[in-house]
Amino acid sequence: MATDNNRFQAIISHCKEYGFVFQSSEIYDGLSAVYDYGQWGSELKKNIKDYWWKSMTQLHENIVGIDAAIFMHPTTWKASGHVDNFSDPMIDNKDSKKRYRVDHLLEAFADELEKAGKKEEGDAILATMDQLLAADDFDGLKKLIEDKKIKCTVSGTSNWTDVRQFNLMFSTQLGSVTEEASEIYLRPETAQGIFVNFLNVQKTGRMKIPFGIAQIGKAFRNEIVARQFIFRMREFEQMEMQFFVRPGTQKEWYEKWKATRMEWHKSLGIPADKYRFHDHVKLAFYADAACDIEFEFPIGFKEVEGIHSRTDYDLSRHQEFSKKKMQYFDPEINQNYIPYVIETSIGLDRCFLMVISNAYAEEDLSTAEKQDSRVVLRFAPKLAPIKLAVLPLTKKDGLPEIAREIMDECKTSFRCFYEEKDAIGRRYRRQDAIGTPFCVTVDHQTKEDQTVTIRYRDTMQQERIPINKIKELIEKQIL
Amino acid sequence: MATDNNRFQAIISHCKEYGFVFQSSEIYDGLSAVYDYGQWGSELKKNIKDYWWKSMTQLHENIVGIDAAIFMHPTTWKASGHVDNFSDPMIDNKDSKKRYRVDHLLEAFADELEKAGKKEEGDAILATMDQLLAADDFDGLKKLIEDKKIKCTVSGTSNWTDVRQFNLMFSTQLGSVTEEASEIYLRPETAQGIFVNFLNVQKTGRMKIPFGIAQIGKAFRNEIVARQFIFRMREFEQMEMQFFVRPGTQKEWYEKWKATRMEWHKSLGIPADKYRFHDHVKLAFYADAACDIEFEFPIGFKEVEGIHSRTDYDLSRHQEFSKKKMQYFDPEINQNYIPYVIETSIGLDRCFLMVISNAYAEEDLSTAEKQDSRVVLRFAPKLAPIKLAVLPLTKKDGLPEIAREIMDECKTSFRCFYEEKDAIGRRYRRQDAIGTPFCVTVDHQTKEDQTVTIRYRDTMQQERIPINKIKELIEKQIL
Repeated sequence: MATDNNRFQAIISHCKEYGFVFQSSEIYDGLSAVYDYGQWGSELKKNIKDYWWKSMTQLHENIVGIDAAIFMHPTTWKASGHVDNFSDPMIDNKDSKKRYRVDHLLEAFADELEKAGKKEEGDAILATMDQLLAADDFDGLKKLIEDKKIKCTVSGTSNWTDVRQFNLMFSTQLGSVTEEASEIYLRPETAQGIFVNFLNVQKTGRMKIPFGIAQIGKAFRNEIVARQFIFRMREFEQMEMQFFVRPGTQKEWYEKWKATRMEWHKSLGIPADKYRFHDHVKLAFYADAACDIEFEFPIGFKEVEGIHSRTDYDLSRHQEFSKKKMQYFDPEINQNYIPYVIETSIGLDRCFLMVISNAYAEEDLSTAEKQDSRVVLRFAPKLAPIKLAVLPLTKKDGLPEIAREIMDECKTSFRCFYEEKDAIGRRYRRQDAIGTPFCVTVDHQTKEDQTVTIRYRDTMQQERIPINKIKELIEKQIL
Repeated sequence: MATDNNRFQAIISHCKEYGFVFQSSEIYDGLSAVYDYGQWGSELKKNIKDYWWKSMTQLHENIVGIDAAIFMHPTTWKASGHVDNFSDPMIDNKDSKKRYRVDHLLEAFADELEKAGKKEEGDAILATMDQLLAADDFDGLKKLIEDKKIKCTVSGTSNWTDVRQFNLMFSTQLGSVTEEASEIYLRPETAQGIFVNFLNVQKTGRMKIPFGIAQIGKAFRNEIVARQFIFRMREFEQMEMQFFVRPGTQKEWYEKWKATRMEWHKSLGIPADKYRFHDHVKLAFYADAACDIEFEFPIGFKEVEGIHSRTDYDLSRHQEFSKKKMQYFDPEINQNYIPYVIETSIGLDRCFLMVISNAYAEEDLSTAEKQDSRVVLRFAPKLAPIKLAVLPLTKKDGLPEIAREIMDECKTSFRCFYEEKDAIGRRYRRQDAIGTPFCVTVDHQTKEDQTVTIRYRDTMQQERIPINKIKELIEKQIL
């Protein structure tokens, strides 16, 4: 059995071995902090997306979706503050040309001190660093690095440049013709696609406040340190919803969305004690409340979703930069105002990692007679990549033909998998490893009484049911 | 009624006015050749995607999906040929610094000649241009421009640079730390994400040839001339499937996929005579057969989907550049080989434009008594953004409460819309304009006999049905 420490590694290996997640461009030795979803990962990811989309839009009359482009007008990111503020302080060693994130350089130095028995000195440095970072005091940070005679690991020298901000947005050139070409950014968040479309959606959709706009899409951040598998990637996907409310009602809606989103998480079949709220004490200057929903990953409690009361900051900024009135006329109180916003923002890739971390189990099935074990992914049936495996016991005696009829009956309703090779026990294990909740086996008795053996992934129990009950039984379980 | 010439403009206006497609970042005066999908457009687009995905994966046991990243290792694009060949010849005027696509510059000049009554001279220039372009003869192209004394419209001079290739791929810098930073591209097609994952999917999925890998995702091309609404965008979405077959069987599979894909198009509820095949006469050097499926847009027959027999070109190139064996062992013939590939590649945005172009109708409903008309989107019910509108005739007498019960019963199964304001006729028209196939109206008779009026979008006919039959009736229609 994997301990907590190596459980994370076991999950990563399993994701590779069973077609859930591959390193991007692996044949070219990969691309740092970018991953591809394989044949079962892409289905799991789609099922999570579809479930979120349905929960947020279909089941909420007052929430509609949009699908905005990754490319946006560059002024968007001036207005949002990303051009000026979405950056980390960096420093270069002039001799080696190696660039460091300032906080990482100081943290590594403090670690060295701790190993050398000087933990207190290290802690004092980190405390000073936190103050300087909070004050954006770059000269102070450089002086701290120089005072402590911190050296570059490559050149061994302390010959440092000034501390500079490094923006995390990816940029590219749009347009080929000289006078048209302009630097644009790959969006670092999907939220702004919603804000710039606020007026269009509100007016053409005749939306009445309170209402929400939901969106799923890719975002990109040139992370200095991107690691921990798909937890922090340079290309990732977000599922965001911005809920527009009357000013003064935001606290109430913030609490409502906190509760609603936590219920959603539990509805994934994940136990409540694996989640906790982390309320932000230090708020962004434009926010009046913010919290994270954290999940207990094998590497500890980490943020999966953020719920933020963003006030009217974003719409006000877009009004300022675009000179378009981002206002709503509220007929109930006969007033124009810029709406306040509650945001729910979940990382799809993190949600995927959460679902598979929770599902992954290594089970000891040994008996007195023999050693045995299995790896099983205990996905909620609605999220499982494949719902049903149809397995003829043997390749002959007409059993495959009956199995084919079951496939034809079921595959229009949900994703099925057909396999006739290998011993039935091995086939069950392979389905366990990709999280298929139901297997039905067609055997010789089937020809006599039109029943099959259905085998349940989680309990491994088997029972006989009539062929004509299979589809109905599974449809009920995957809602 | 719109003529063919202005029908396209009418569709574009309708897309904006009813929340299907907005110009990207419109409040900042837009971004050239980039669009956002609004509240009903995002649903229509998702329905098309989901229908394609189900058709290709769920209904084909031997096709699995993947979801590869937009960022790929840059060697991918060396291997695929995009770094060297995915470009257009351009020329700059040295005085104005204005850049022109060579073919556009010459075409504009030929147009001028034609207007001046010298059509023959213009045609001769274009014929020469075609020969030079086909031969990649850049010196010849420059000489042609100089010989004809073609002038820049800005500077008025003929002071030209050499003709150079301009690559259509967008590039960006990955990684912030100096030694790690590298230029990467935004993928110009999704196909290569499938090819680089061929081995991973085949091995971890135990796939047997023939089998396919499907993918839906964004791609990016820095088009010199991007126009015609969402028909040619700089950011767009593809739905591609690469089908791997034994060498020698590719013609047969090519024909099969041609037929299968045409059937799919017709299953969208679009008449057969709106489609035609366009077989490529001039093939790419690596292809041994290729055709387009063209749809008759208001702007004429245009490509929506391509079906290509790509031989073993892509996998061979990746084998060459990655030094990894891109081979398959075929147990039936006991041989190793690099599979041949049949590709089906459809533009999702073009498919969206096709569906909405086909659906859009302006109808004259005038009678002897009064003038009347409507705009209706005749979507196949399975593609419609909203399936059912639930409309209480009045806001009182308990009718909204009954309507709410119908909503609660139906909204878990499909997207519903509730509206209680305005005259019922106006509400029907608004649903027609966004393509909702069914409306039910709750009136006073409903309280007595538990029936509602169901009104059909296409025929505008109405009939009374029991409340408890609504859901079943609609579910049958949206399969």
